[in-house]
Formats: sequence, structure tokens, C-alpha cells
Amino acid sequence: MKQNIYDNPSFFNGYQAMRDNQTGLHQFVEQPAILSLLPDVTGATALDLGCGAGGLCRKLIELGSACVVGVDISRNMLALAQKDAPAGIEFRHMAMEDFTAQDNTFDLVVSSLALHYLADLETLFRRIHGWLKTPGTFLFSMEHPAFTCAQGIHPDCIEDETGAPLYWPFDCYSDEGRRESHWFVDGVVRYHHTLSTILNSLLRSSLQISAVLEPVATPAHEQKQPPLKTERRRPTLLVVKAVKL
Amino acid sequence: MKQNIYDNPSFFNGYQAMRDNQTGLHQFVEQPAILSLLPDVTGATALDLGCGAGGLCRKLIELGSACVVGVDISRNMLALAQKDAPAGIEFRHMAMEDFTAQDNTFDLVVSSLALHYLADLETLFRRIHGWLKTPGTFLFSMEHPAFTCAQGIHPDCIEDETGAPLYWPFDCYSDEGRRESHWFVDGVVRYHHTLSTILNSLLRSSLQISAVLEPVATPAHEQKQPPLKTERRRPTLLVVKAVKL
Repeated sequence: MKQNIYDNPSFFNGYQAMRDNQTGLHQFVEQPAILSLLPDVTGATALDLGCGAGGLCRKLIELGSACVVGVDISRNMLALAQKDAPAGIEFRHMAMEDFTAQDNTFDLVVSSLALHYLADLETLFRRIHGWLKTPGTFLFSMEHPAFTCAQGIHPDCIEDETGAPLYWPFDCYSDEGRRESHWFVDGVVRYHHTLSTILNSLLRSSLQISAVLEPVATPAHEQKQPPLKTERRRPTLLVVKAVKL
Repeated sequence: MKQNIYDNPSFFNGYQAMRDNQTGLHQFVEQPAILSLLPDVTGATALDLGCGAGGLCRKLIELGSACVVGVDISRNMLALAQKDAPAGIEFRHMAMEDFTAQDNTFDLVVSSLALHYLADLETLFRRIHGWLKTPGTFLFSMEHPAFTCAQGIHPDCIEDETGAPLYWPFDCYSDEGRRESHWFVDGVVRYHHTLSTILNSLLRSSLQISAVLEPVATPAHEQKQPPLKTERRRPTLLVVKAVKL
């Protein structure tokens, strides 16, 4: 069964409260990193895998994309996404691994903070390679292997006697696969993939790596949200741009 | 001043004892990973940056390379390297960052466990791109960013009450640069580079990434050297193959 945690009411409420509170990881770290690597999308046909509430789909339309297909497994998230969605976006309710398309359909495939819910990256990467036109871009963010490796195995962070972060336990790196932890609710499942698996899966899918980011916030955003400073100490996010040439 | 720790007698003795003892990281983890990514070297002209005792230079000749240039800053290591060296190897006594060559000279540039002693990778990577013929291969191993990030800042490993490894402290990841720690002697300096810096420095030097490994030992070798099992929990090594096309 594919996990659809975003349709769990307790999770959804916690997640929405986090987004409304703007803890900033998405707004100040992830989105700027994605936007910094986005190619010119004027007139582009784009696919957003795990589009959630549709923010990146809207952004792509705003930046000139001709049409965007947004795919998400959560009815809750798609209901948010469809509210006042501009023309040019088509939302599809399904797991990203069930999506199919004709070869050579998209100029751009994006995926924001969704791929760490997937056990098998390479099968999807090979499909994405097929769906992309030549040239085409695949740009994604996911949880960083240094963040996922010990999730649910050790405490996320070891604190000093004042409660400040001392360091982050690192372990079980080569043991890829399922990690279960508490995030708003118990039993949220993500999959740990090593960096070499992520990158070699792209390469084996005939995609060329063109940039890798481990983004942090700007000093100004860190002042607004001091917890973001810890991103410099242990990155949460990995952002990769790959191209079909 | 460039560090020449291998000519420090205490360090050199400790290092030689380690190599003679075959703790196995070099023999069972690093070398197999490098050899697994080596292209066909028949007739090749190769450069080995930080060649140490010349093992990889000899291996390249054994595998059919026509000539190999080995560069190392340590007279101690080069003295070992020159003992009974086969024809076809030329050793040069200098820091790898001082080496110069004509453009389009080498089919292959290798560097085994040396680049973590270098503060500025990108300048060297750009030079390597120039020295390589088209097509050409640059294959290197270096200490893994998850290993270097907290070196000299936190204990390398946190142990449980029985002395077994519990986890490895991870910290200071984005704070690139000098790390000083004890390795046979005090004050051994290495430089921490993030994974994104290592990979983007290659890409900015017009080198394409063709494989990334975070190698571990085989179960058989782990039986011979049980401490090698910890490589599965926290990798020490990163191996990257890049190509000039």
C-alpha cells in the first residue's frame, strides 16, 4: 500500500500549521534552491511529481510555462491546490509512481520534497528520462541522506545541558530503505537512499548531473528563523538538477 | 606552507605500521572501488596525484599503461615508491598543486586519498581538465564529507557502555575548510569540502560526473577485519569518476 500520510487528518492539521507558521525550511531554503536551478520555462510543458498544495505548479505558470501537470496522492493537498488555480494546470490524483505519459512529453519534470517517500528511485528516474524531451530538465529536492540515515534509529539531535544542539547522530548509512519516525503522527515512513544511489540512479537512467545543492538559508532569513541556522550544521535537504541531452 | 606530514618521522612510522598491519580500509575498500571504475588503460598515459608509495602507479603499468607520472610531496613516500619501480613510471617530488603539464597530455588522472589535504579543489580540477585528452578520465578517492565535517570538533565516534560504536557525531557540515586532528601525531590538517562543493567544482571545470561510490568492504573482507563493518554505518571514503568528453 502506498503511504498517503497527507490524508491522515492529524498529520494534515500538523503539517498545515507548520506551513502556516512558516518554520521556513520550505520557504527560505528549499524553494530558493529549486528556483535558483530552474531553467527558462517560457512556453514549457512541465510535470510536478508530488505537487502537494500546488505552489510550485503555480510558480511555473507565473514564470511562463504553457502547461503544468501536478500529480499527488493526497486528496487533501489537491483540494488546496485546486482552489483558485490559474489556467494551464491540470491536477491528477494518483501516486507519482503510477503516473504514466507518452515519451518526449515534458520540457521539465520537477519534484519538491516527495522522492524520499519512494522506495525505488531508479524505476521512476528511467520513466522520467523517457517522458522528457531532448533537451529536458529534471530538478528535484528530497531529504538529505545525512538526515534520513539514522531517522527513527537514534534521536534526531543530541543536545547539550542547556538544550542547544550539540551534534546529530549519524549511523546506518549503507542500510538503505524504510525509516519510520514521528512527524506530527507516529509511523511516518520515508526511505533512506545513499547519495551514491541517488546520483548513480540518475546516471544509469541516462540523465546527466548538472548541479547538486545542499542548501542553507541566507543570514537574513536565519535572523527571522534562528532554528534554520542548524541547516549549516546538518543539512536536511539535497537538491539535484539533471538533464537529458 | 604545504603540509608534508608523511615526512614527519612519527607520522610515517605510524602510517607504515598501519599499512603493514593491513587494517584493510585501503586494501579492501578503497583500492577495489578505484579499480572497479578504472577505464581500459592499455597504452594510456596516466598521472597519479599524491602517489605516495606508488602502489597505484605500479598497478596502472601492470594493467597496460604506457607511462605513469607519480607526484608526491613526501620524500619518504617517494623513496618507497622508487624501490624496484618498473619501467614506465616517472616520479616527481612536489606538491600536487605545484605540478604543471601541457594541455592534452594524459588519458587518465588518478588521485588516491590525497585530495582531502587540499584547501582549493576547483583550481586543481580546472588544471586537470586541461591536462586531460578528450576523451579522458579523472578518477579519485578522498575522505567522505560525512567523515571530515566534524573531525577535531567532536569525538570521532560515540561508544556505548561496552565500548561498541553507538553513532558518529555529525556537525559543521557547511563550514568548509581546515580540520585539525590527531592521526598518529597531533595537528594533522585535512580540509572538509561538502559533497556539493566537490561535485559542482567538477561540473564547473567542464568535467562530467560518471559515477559516485561510497564504498564498503565485502562480507568476506569484513570477516577478516571486523572493524571494517563500521564503513556501512558511517562511510570514510568517497570515490568519484569524472570524464572529459
